[in-house]
Amino acid sequence: MITKSEILEALKNVMDPEVHVSIVTMNMVRNVDISPNGHIAITVALTVPSCPLASTIQKDIQDIILALEDVRSVEVTLSSMSDEEKERMWENLQAKRGKGQPQLQRPGAWLARLPKKEITHIVAVISGKGGVGKSLVTALMATELKRQGFKVGILDADLTGPSMAKIFGLKGIGGVGADGVRPASSGLGVEVMSMNLLLKNPQEAVIWRGPIITNALRQLYMDVKWGALDFLLLDLPPGTSDVPLTIYQVFPIDGVVIVSSPQDLAGMIVMKAINMAKVMKIPLLGLVENMSYAVCPHCSERLEVFGPSKGEALAKAAGIPYLGALPLDPEISALCDEGKIEEYKSPVFAEMAKKVISTIPQAPRIITQQ
Amino acid sequence: MITKSEILEALKNVMDPEVHVSIVTMNMVRNVDISPNGHIAITVALTVPSCPLASTIQKDIQDIILALEDVRSVEVTLSSMSDEEKERMWENLQAKRGKGQPQLQRPGAWLARLPKKEITHIVAVISGKGGVGKSLVTALMATELKRQGFKVGILDADLTGPSMAKIFGLKGIGGVGADGVRPASSGLGVEVMSMNLLLKNPQEAVIWRGPIITNALRQLYMDVKWGALDFLLLDLPPGTSDVPLTIYQVFPIDGVVIVSSPQDLAGMIVMKAINMAKVMKIPLLGLVENMSYAVCPHCSERLEVFGPSKGEALAKAAGIPYLGALPLDPEISALCDEGKIEEYKSPVFAEMAKKVISTIPQAPRIITQQ
Repeated sequence: MITKSEILEALKNVMDPEVHVSIVTMNMVRNVDISPNGHIAITVALTVPSCPLASTIQKDIQDIILALEDVRSVEVTLSSMSDEEKERMWENLQAKRGKGQPQLQRPGAWLARLPKKEITHIVAVISGKGGVGKSLVTALMATELKRQGFKVGILDADLTGPSMAKIFGLKGIGGVGADGVRPASSGLGVEVMSMNLLLKNPQEAVIWRGPIITNALRQLYMDVKWGALDFLLLDLPPGTSDVPLTIYQVFPIDGVVIVSSPQDLAGMIVMKAINMAKVMKIPLLGLVENMSYAVCPHCSERLEVFGPSKGEALAKAAGIPYLGALPLDPEISALCDEGKIEEYKSPVFAEMAKKVISTIPQAPRIITQQ
Repeated sequence: MITKSEILEALKNVMDPEVHVSIVTMNMVRNVDISPNGHIAITVALTVPSCPLASTIQKDIQDIILALEDVRSVEVTLSSMSDEEKERMWENLQAKRGKGQPQLQRPGAWLARLPKKEITHIVAVISGKGGVGKSLVTALMATELKRQGFKVGILDADLTGPSMAKIFGLKGIGGVGADGVRPASSGLGVEVMSMNLLLKNPQEAVIWRGPIITNALRQLYMDVKWGALDFLLLDLPPGTSDVPLTIYQVFPIDGVVIVSSPQDLAGMIVMKAINMAKVMKIPLLGLVENMSYAVCPHCSERLEVFGPSKGEALAKAAGIPYLGALPLDPEISALCDEGKIEEYKSPVFAEMAKKVISTIPQAPRIITQQ
């Protein structure tokens, strides 16, 4: 019959997908039960309960243990570590590393959530798909909220493809003090922080791998003096990899607004982003369809350049509120290119911003600036 | 006066940005020269000569050494390691790690380029910006090349936002043999490999961090039986982070085709991608402007929904060939959504595909299928 130490030896090959350290070294294996009939029951404590990579660990364990002789079946039960256990594990891991050994990168997943600072609501604008207008929706939403009297900031979380400086016509940050970097302030007074405000040349590429990107992201939040805000909007990059993962794990966000376009293809990828948010238990505030239609300036006919609208159906399929459709308006492109997005006034969007606010659990309140 | 060992001690805090290991541990510091007047000259051997993160290392060294007492100026000279030195360093690093220590992830940058297999030309389609039509251009280019008699494959390198299965109407891979996974084959016979061909549900999110993404990417190339191809096109995700970095470092690509849209905003971010390719010395084959204009089906007027075309000016500013403009055609959206992109015929695009072929250094030759 197989022994417990043989199983533990095999489990050394199962790595935590975030830290690249064996689950045995990380003391994640809590119980191994061996039945005489070849059934193995293993309990593993994850570092975070909603770890999106839990199924990877589970499958890796099953594959490795089932490959052993005398094993007929494997059952893996997942539990999660307490904060204290995590802290102890972290200290042990560090202590085990000899002098001169590289420091382990402490993964975002192990950290407590970042503080909310003096910010009442943090909302991320996501899509999964690129180029559907996340940045535009973020900018219009911020402008609209500002017009309605709220204190608003935007953190451009798309570090490799930042749009916010350009859209608002901003160059350079608002200054550096002992207490941190001040964001740039738009014409209407929206506080903006974007990678392009920090680069000498806005066309310079930020060629960084994930760990450096997510570290910079934390700095753009923590080391920036946002002051008191009613709303901080995060404009996310496309995809379901490092940036959204880190934001969902450690940023104290209240929920996400999803942006889609009428193409089925876009809808499919937007659904991936929605499913990621669901897996990570992030509240979905609603869906906006952008580029829904164009209006011909010559004959005023409606033109469905990306096909007929599917936003409402998509929102329904995902079980989230539908917030409305925005047109593909050449005026929007021109205003974005000129850095004058705040001049765009859309009754459709004013309504939409109100709907978004109404979906946020607590009604926002005006905070007095300190 | 400061001593060499004090400087080496300080340099232990400079990490290789790819491996997160100190440049001292990695034996990258080759010479430290201390002048009595406080001038320090340091020579550092990089793992790869064109390391895009070289300036990060250089700056980190300068910042850390300049902060030391008695140091007036610092000069950092960069050289690069031979393959043999890299191999030795790698073995030393592994040997230094005690038993039970996690394995180091061998970074892509240290590896020799992947083999070209039986593929004559590998071309990546990039943009930097999302949603400008990289996937569409990739699909149309593949179709056009196929029509012209070439053997063509597509590797969908956008793992978190894959479009290729949908655009070509493909479900599931072409089978699994002892020699690897076979790609799916389109109606016209384009060989396609995409993340969505491997998922049970195409709306499932792939929630992976960079290292796992780039590892999967290698597998989609190496473990897939591509057979003999004249062209393999890689459809890249937006951004200038992990995926393009890995592809430029280890994939044997011949060059990149850039896709842009008429918005200034898009142009700015496209320039970031162009600058990244330039930094990494990747040949730029040409630029295509997508969504250049729409045609009103009612009055047949041209509609510049994203503003006037800027593709030619952008190509000129970047010093690369301009390949032409594609319209924003609702028929394209419909065909993509129906998985029938191969039915789209565009004389504009046939010309463009010929231009792309002509920019590739060696003229392509037909290889007999084995």
